[in-house]
Amino acid sequence: MCAAGGAAPDSPLPDSGTVAELGEFGLIARITAGRERSPGTLLGPGDDAAVLAAADGRVVVTTDVLVEGVHFRLDWSTPHQVGRKAVAANLADVAAMGAVPTALVVGLAVPGRTPISTVDGLAAGMWAEAGQAGAGIVGGDVVSSEQLVVSVTALGDLQGRAPVTRSGARPGDVLALCGRLGWSAAGLAVLRRGLQFPLAPSPLAVVAAHRVPEPPYGAGPQAASAGATAMIDVSDGLLSDAGHVAEASGVGIDVDSAAVAVASQLVEVASALGADARHWVLTGGEDHALLASFPAGVALPAGWTEVGVVREGRGVTVDGSVVLPGGWQHFS
Amino acid sequence: MCAAGGAAPDSPLPDSGTVAELGEFGLIARITAGRERSPGTLLGPGDDAAVLAAADGRVVVTTDVLVEGVHFRLDWSTPHQVGRKAVAANLADVAAMGAVPTALVVGLAVPGRTPISTVDGLAAGMWAEAGQAGAGIVGGDVVSSEQLVVSVTALGDLQGRAPVTRSGARPGDVLALCGRLGWSAAGLAVLRRGLQFPLAPSPLAVVAAHRVPEPPYGAGPQAASAGATAMIDVSDGLLSDAGHVAEASGVGIDVDSAAVAVASQLVEVASALGADARHWVLTGGEDHALLASFPAGVALPAGWTEVGVVREGRGVTVDGSVVLPGGWQHFS
Repeated sequence: MCAAGGAAPDSPLPDSGTVAELGEFGLIARITAGRERSPGTLLGPGDDAAVLAAADGRVVVTTDVLVEGVHFRLDWSTPHQVGRKAVAANLADVAAMGAVPTALVVGLAVPGRTPISTVDGLAAGMWAEAGQAGAGIVGGDVVSSEQLVVSVTALGDLQGRAPVTRSGARPGDVLALCGRLGWSAAGLAVLRRGLQFPLAPSPLAVVAAHRVPEPPYGAGPQAASAGATAMIDVSDGLLSDAGHVAEASGVGIDVDSAAVAVASQLVEVASALGADARHWVLTGGEDHALLASFPAGVALPAGWTEVGVVREGRGVTVDGSVVLPGGWQHFS
Repeated sequence: MCAAGGAAPDSPLPDSGTVAELGEFGLIARITAGRERSPGTLLGPGDDAAVLAAADGRVVVTTDVLVEGVHFRLDWSTPHQVGRKAVAANLADVAAMGAVPTALVVGLAVPGRTPISTVDGLAAGMWAEAGQAGAGIVGGDVVSSEQLVVSVTALGDLQGRAPVTRSGARPGDVLALCGRLGWSAAGLAVLRRGLQFPLAPSPLAVVAAHRVPEPPYGAGPQAASAGATAMIDVSDGLLSDAGHVAEASGVGIDVDSAAVAVASQLVEVASALGADARHWVLTGGEDHALLASFPAGVALPAGWTEVGVVREGRGVTVDGSVVLPGGWQHFS
């Protein structure tokens, strides 16, 4: 890890210019300057490594990499939005274990020609999203590359609870959901069409959802406390991610399609685009809703909705019928 | 974090082809298949996040990003060597806090055209180096990109000790070193010259050192136990990194150049190339030796050599004279 060290400037930071002009240490100073230290940060950025409290005696860790042109486009999203999305994807993974996010470390590979304002926006977005979840950015690395790559690692605290894995779903469990589905896919469809109707509220709302997901971070620990037997964050799509739970748990899952809400905004956008809103809801990824199984009869925590059942067997069915999950894989 | 999940194949893995042909989940299955779980791994790869023991109640975390063409060249190093080096740089940061490495998460951004054998080599090298330090790879993400980027985050355990920061050096302390210096720089010089004399032992030895550093991981916790007041791993070069300690501690540091060993192999290679071996030793980075300050009179742990003193003032001097540290910055 690189140190901000003594590079923190006494004079105001420049607002123009490129990353190459600012240099590595100047860039790190800029990203870390003036940020509040989150609770649990025993030693923050500026040394060989950071030190965090892990009062639970365990630590949850997850990592995601986002690549410009693959996971985001800077002509479709601002750097601030990309920063928020990169952090959100990781914090949702922490929440899906039933844990509370505590800290992040960030790796940025940045072309030298990148405007400083882009890195400023990325950093501000990452701090904003981390702050929403009560976590801080405790370290990082900034290097030069040909393509912008954002690598985020998030840590979390189980607060004494057992981790909620993908493998604990049992036949008879209730399948439940918390958070939005299909919004990011709808927003992507609008962006691909080229924002033909930029002033209508529904397209703007789904585009905003594509740019910045709103994972229900608090719902993860709540589900764990309520006895969730398995949990996953919906990053690939409801059917795909239900399939991951089914496979890891050695069970089948049946989704009750009528129980999965299709927001009126999605219906409106789908109608305008000649698309199928229900397809977005069942297969669209990147909204980072939480999907969990609970023992039958358990009172679901507030915000959770029953959307299916866990059964004997294998695979995912919708309303009792076999489907081909429309998941999304890199390289394929 | 992506899951290996059910993608683990029952049939033997293919040995040829590209990453694009294998797909994301196949690639992850390949990287994680058959690896031993390290001690302290409560939940390994395959879920939304991993869970690690943190018996100390704190966790050390650090991250580094390596970019092809910037930090490594696959015509100069094998993928196995690149994997080892990427992990070594992070584990050295953990050791420099006085901690023992426990686990790593890895992000790989890989062009689709990359041969599967390259990813196999990278993964094997990362596991090999992690294993040397007793750590395991507990999670990761694999995505497509135009340029190969390896992002490594390492966690560590302080085992009850206070972290040894860069800021604790005090005037009168002894400056001490453990590990090699100048070898990687010498190896880089040989590679840049084009391996004119590939069969001589000294050039081969320094090239090997450039390809795979050998940080003295165990020396970090030993120094912490012996009372080290400040510590850093020498990644930028002795004078640069001594400068980071001096600045963070608000002290001056004087390096006794005669006390810093110049290995005979470096002298031999420098002579053949018309270079200055002492310059490599004082300014060459990437060997990841550990540099620490100890209170005067403390018995240095085995393997540590006194190489200077901490004094009042600011900055780094060599034999009492001011020098311009030849550090290495990205973007500059």
